[in-house]
Amino acid sequence: MLEKNIKDQAPIDYQALVDAVLGDASSYRGHGDVSNYLPALAQVDPNKLGIALATGDGSVHVAGDADDRFSMQSISTIFALSLTLGHVGGALWNHVGREPAGAPFNALVQLEEEKGKPRNPLINAGAIVVCDQLIGRDPPEEAVEEILDFLRERSGDDSIDIDENVVMSESKAGALNRSLAYFIAASGNLSNSVEDVLNVYFRQCAIRMNCRQLARAALYLAFDGMDPVTKVEICNPARSRRINALMLTSGHYDNSGDFAFRIGLPGKSGSGGGILATIPGIGAVCVWSPGLNAARTSLAGAVALEKLVERTGWSVFI
Amino acid sequence: MLEKNIKDQAPIDYQALVDAVLGDASSYRGHGDVSNYLPALAQVDPNKLGIALATGDGSVHVAGDADDRFSMQSISTIFALSLTLGHVGGALWNHVGREPAGAPFNALVQLEEEKGKPRNPLINAGAIVVCDQLIGRDPPEEAVEEILDFLRERSGDDSIDIDENVVMSESKAGALNRSLAYFIAASGNLSNSVEDVLNVYFRQCAIRMNCRQLARAALYLAFDGMDPVTKVEICNPARSRRINALMLTSGHYDNSGDFAFRIGLPGKSGSGGGILATIPGIGAVCVWSPGLNAARTSLAGAVALEKLVERTGWSVFI
Amino acid sequence: MLEKNIKDQAPIDYQALVDAVLGDASSYRGHGDVSNYLPALAQVDPNKLGIALATGDGSVHVAGDADDRFSMQSISTIFALSLTLGHVGGALWNHVGREPAGAPFNALVQLEEEKGKPRNPLINAGAIVVCDQLIGRDPPEEAVEEILDFLRERSGDDSIDIDENVVMSESKAGALNRSLAYFIAASGNLSNSVEDVLNVYFRQCAIRMNCRQLARAALYLAFDGMDPVTKVEICNPARSRRINALMLTSGHYDNSGDFAFRIGLPGKSGSGGGILATIPGIGAVCVWSPGLNAARTSLAGAVALEKLVERTGWSVFI
Amino acid sequence: MLEKNIKDQAPIDYQALVDAVLGDASSYRGHGDVSNYLPALAQVDPNKLGIALATGDGSVHVAGDADDRFSMQSISTIFALSLTLGHVGGALWNHVGREPAGAPFNALVQLEEEKGKPRNPLINAGAIVVCDQLIGRDPPEEAVEEILDFLRERSGDDSIDIDENVVMSESKAGALNRSLAYFIAASGNLSNSVEDVLNVYFRQCAIRMNCRQLARAALYLAFDGMDPVTKVEICNPARSRRINALMLTSGHYDNSGDFAFRIGLPGKSGSGGGILATIPGIGAVCVWSPGLNAARTSLAGAVALEKLVERTGWSVFI
Repeated sequence: MLEKNIKDQAPIDYQALVDAVLGDASSYRGHGDVSNYLPALAQVDPNKLGIALATGDGSVHVAGDADDRFSMQSISTIFALSLTLGHVGGALWNHVGREPAGAPFNALVQLEEEKGKPRNPLINAGAIVVCDQLIGRDPPEEAVEEILDFLRERSGDDSIDIDENVVMSESKAGALNRSLAYFIAASGNLSNSVEDVLNVYFRQCAIRMNCRQLARAALYLAFDGMDPVTKVEICNPARSRRINALMLTSGHYDNSGDFAFRIGLPGKSGSGGGILATIPGIGAVCVWSPGLNAARTSLAGAVALEKLVERTGWSVFI
Repeated sequence: MLEKNIKDQAPIDYQALVDAVLGDASSYRGHGDVSNYLPALAQVDPNKLGIALATGDGSVHVAGDADDRFSMQSISTIFALSLTLGHVGGALWNHVGREPAGAPFNALVQLEEEKGKPRNPLINAGAIVVCDQLIGRDPPEEAVEEILDFLRERSGDDSIDIDENVVMSESKAGALNRSLAYFIAASGNLSNSVEDVLNVYFRQCAIRMNCRQLARAALYLAFDGMDPVTKVEICNPARSRRINALMLTSGHYDNSGDFAFRIGLPGKSGSGGGILATIPGIGAVCVWSPGLNAARTSLAGAVALEKLVERTGWSVFI
Repeated sequence: MLEKNIKDQAPIDYQALVDAVLGDASSYRGHGDVSNYLPALAQVDPNKLGIALATGDGSVHVAGDADDRFSMQSISTIFALSLTLGHVGGALWNHVGREPAGAPFNALVQLEEEKGKPRNPLINAGAIVVCDQLIGRDPPEEAVEEILDFLRERSGDDSIDIDENVVMSESKAGALNRSLAYFIAASGNLSNSVEDVLNVYFRQCAIRMNCRQLARAALYLAFDGMDPVTKVEICNPARSRRINALMLTSGHYDNSGDFAFRIGLPGKSGSGGGILATIPGIGAVCVWSPGLNAARTSLAGAVALEKLVERTGWSVFI
Repeated sequence: MLEKNIKDQAPIDYQALVDAVLGDASSYRGHGDVSNYLPALAQVDPNKLGIALATGDGSVHVAGDADDRFSMQSISTIFALSLTLGHVGGALWNHVGREPAGAPFNALVQLEEEKGKPRNPLINAGAIVVCDQLIGRDPPEEAVEEILDFLRERSGDDSIDIDENVVMSESKAGALNRSLAYFIAASGNLSNSVEDVLNVYFRQCAIRMNCRQLARAALYLAFDGMDPVTKVEICNPARSRRINALMLTSGHYDNSGDFAFRIGLPGKSGSGGGILATIPGIGAVCVWSPGLNAARTSLAGAVALEKLVERTGWSVFI
């Protein structure tokens, strides 16, 4: 509830805001470890830092490396989830839960304890299930095209594409995701073949976008499911709020609680160093910096968001 | 961000609202199981249902059994946490984490894996650590008095007391909490003796209050730490938001994610059948109905809150 | 130490013994569930029951369906382990442990906690690692041929072969084993590709033999590593004893402790319904009956072994 | 099956044997860590090393510090188990399992997963359940007296007593055992009060004996339940073999598998540095050296037993 902040103060100079936040986080550039999850990700310059803030009128305010494209990785799940819920609705929850997952070492543990039903759609195992449901009975390539088309339309940029190098570069990481996917399949919770599902999953994660595009694309989640510029309804208000709730409780693996505690905005981290957050009623923000903390959230990116909230009071908790 | 809702509609008739919500949830009276955790709790009439909504001007709107006292149980932790953070500040986080706990069976598992540092302050193990820190170096009785005084002052009712029957009635439940406490002690994470800490914990849980008092008492958490009526600052805005964040990610054991998904408000369940929720910028609401779902959250109470949010749009996620 | 039994009684009539034991266990035919792990295994007649006892002079005494071939499944690991230790020696223990695994649900849990190093070579994950080490740097087919040749030579029957139907029939089961194998690979504990290793593993499990052949083949493990008939040394005494120790502590998944408790002989169960046990200093015994208990050990087979030990005192514990 | 070894060689010079074994292990004196589990145990001289071998004629051959008394700790469970099985028989297995426990971190995990039924009687949680069953409906002191009387009679030494310092010295260790015991009680698996049961357990663990006494006392387990000297039947052969089986699969916490692998004798480790092992048909051996390996088994003690088996071939696996 931000009315107080909004009413009590002069109109915000968004450009000054993002510039200031970039400055706040600047000394954290290069901190943390660049993902070695995929060789292709490991080659990114660790000193990159970008921020983009999209607001309800469609304007996007950027600072730093906000126009550099990076690998979305798990951020893509937010969009795949929106599309999948549009297709299958609440039936999705027969295949995946909506509780926070606890620690990362639990990934496999919980999958086993809960018989192949992942804890929530925002951990890897859950995202794999979302991909399976998105494919449904159509050819797998169509699911990838659907996500790409959606992102191109949401961000108004037809050039968004997949980094084929990253798709290739699934060695160690690929093995772990294959282990998860085969376990889910063994539990009878996949409708399509493991390889088809993983193909969609790997390609979805390998989409490259920049902060500007991602902030713009996520605006509908800050406005109860409706794109505030085009007035297109992407999903109904209840669904939009629920996606935000999942992002808040589960968007950052085993530091989701800490993220909510420090920042208080629904968000989703990707191991490429991006973090996408929604500011209900205000807009969406995307930060990017490749250095990750121990829980694989962008270190400088999280600092930037923390400073943004400090400067504006844009927590959902007041 | 509720400005849209607030601006777009006529002033809310709060009394009509709570009456309507009571009606919505009425058919769920008696559903679920009354806690058999403590014999003293098991004797409560399962058909009770009450709701109280406190708003920023200090008025409290009630319906149903909102003036019946019930056992707070874990709801008390919210207030103990507020007090403890006032004493020890961020040093508390050396002793307890702030991540969601995952499933209930994990209580002991996680405690062991994380070497006696509970996952968050809102699960039993965490609440025990909060009690230990609240005691500090003072006599244990003073900690209990401090909580009681705080609740009396917050709710403006000096008659609030402890149900000694419930304190006595710690048989099976007592054994499990003792197991947790001794494990924490074995890990070197308690400053006081197990029996002293448990004494404070059991007495804090046995405080009896009604919906009206609890909603009133929690108002400060909906107004950035300041009591909106008396203008007393209970805690600073950042701390208030953080307590709300913990309630949202971890306030309902292993259905915290589901609660956030369905209701979207910071809340805390107690096994006595109460649920206390904050509505940032608007007020606080307390519902009570003794029948619990499988995860020990009041079944009719959660329905009432879901209906309240449906009728008002009071989710933090827009 | 069986000298007492042996010295104190007249020479045993082995044929009468196996006949009697068959009778003892006969009423358990058809109890338990036939493995539905693989469709090809599910078609076996559940009323089959066979027993074969091979003694130091090379004679084999049989009763019931001891000449019917069945799918060895995990029993094959005993022989693969013998061969692998011959190739890589103690270096194997860098890749797999030798502690009992605990409950079956732990399979994946433990693999994760121990970073891809399976608990012991006799659970599925461990057998997969043994296959990888057996392949070494040679073509995978050679590993399969080596196991087949070894079994043909040990049992003196060149017709032993692989049931290609069973190899094909890796649907659900295959997915779970793939999940394990990819996890091990993700942990850096496989030298060969997952598909190559699984190919050897699946083929090794699909070897079909009968009780007579298996009892004969295992004789070396009852005589300190030397085939008592041919006097060929298969492995040295210390290694032979160690393989027996692993069978005793870990040969039957999560009912290894119960098997040791009831029967007291080193053994290995297979989900095809076979159990192979060694009787140090005396011989080897193989029983087969397809109905499995909850922990996937042949139900009638375990009863037969229990009766054998009751009738003879052939426990290692006296 | 040791007949080969026994027949093939001249009568063993047992004194020379224990002297040689002491020499073999001597360079490991002082290796490992002395238990800091209890302050009273931490004061023991780490360089102590003793061995005693009792044989079927009742003679006991000793070397080194075999007449120094040390704290039995968990070794006492073997005798408590023998007595308890005598009282309650197979009904004990309703309260405790007989499967190996897996890793030590599982202690609490498994207890929770299996709802308060410990994995086996030889881990702490299981020993607590054995004490509860041994008490039955009698006064707790009688259970302690029964164990003491049994040990005095078995070893022929009436001076065996309890080290009251060790009983007192239950600080950190006490807390962990209390945590286990309260969890078992919370699960409804204790008949007596936690404090009564722990009192028996702590006192039983604090009995002090020397290697000579312990080896003599355990002889019945090497001779099918009958004391080979007095011909008193302590338990029937089946029960004796089963206790040996439990020792082999579960006698050394999470290195039971390794102990079976290396040594191949039923044994039980205590955190006071003692290891008691039975040699079916031959005798019993007790070693003592206070330095423990990571899994709390005497390091020099295990080496001594390994050398003993190397020198004699006294593994149960041939």
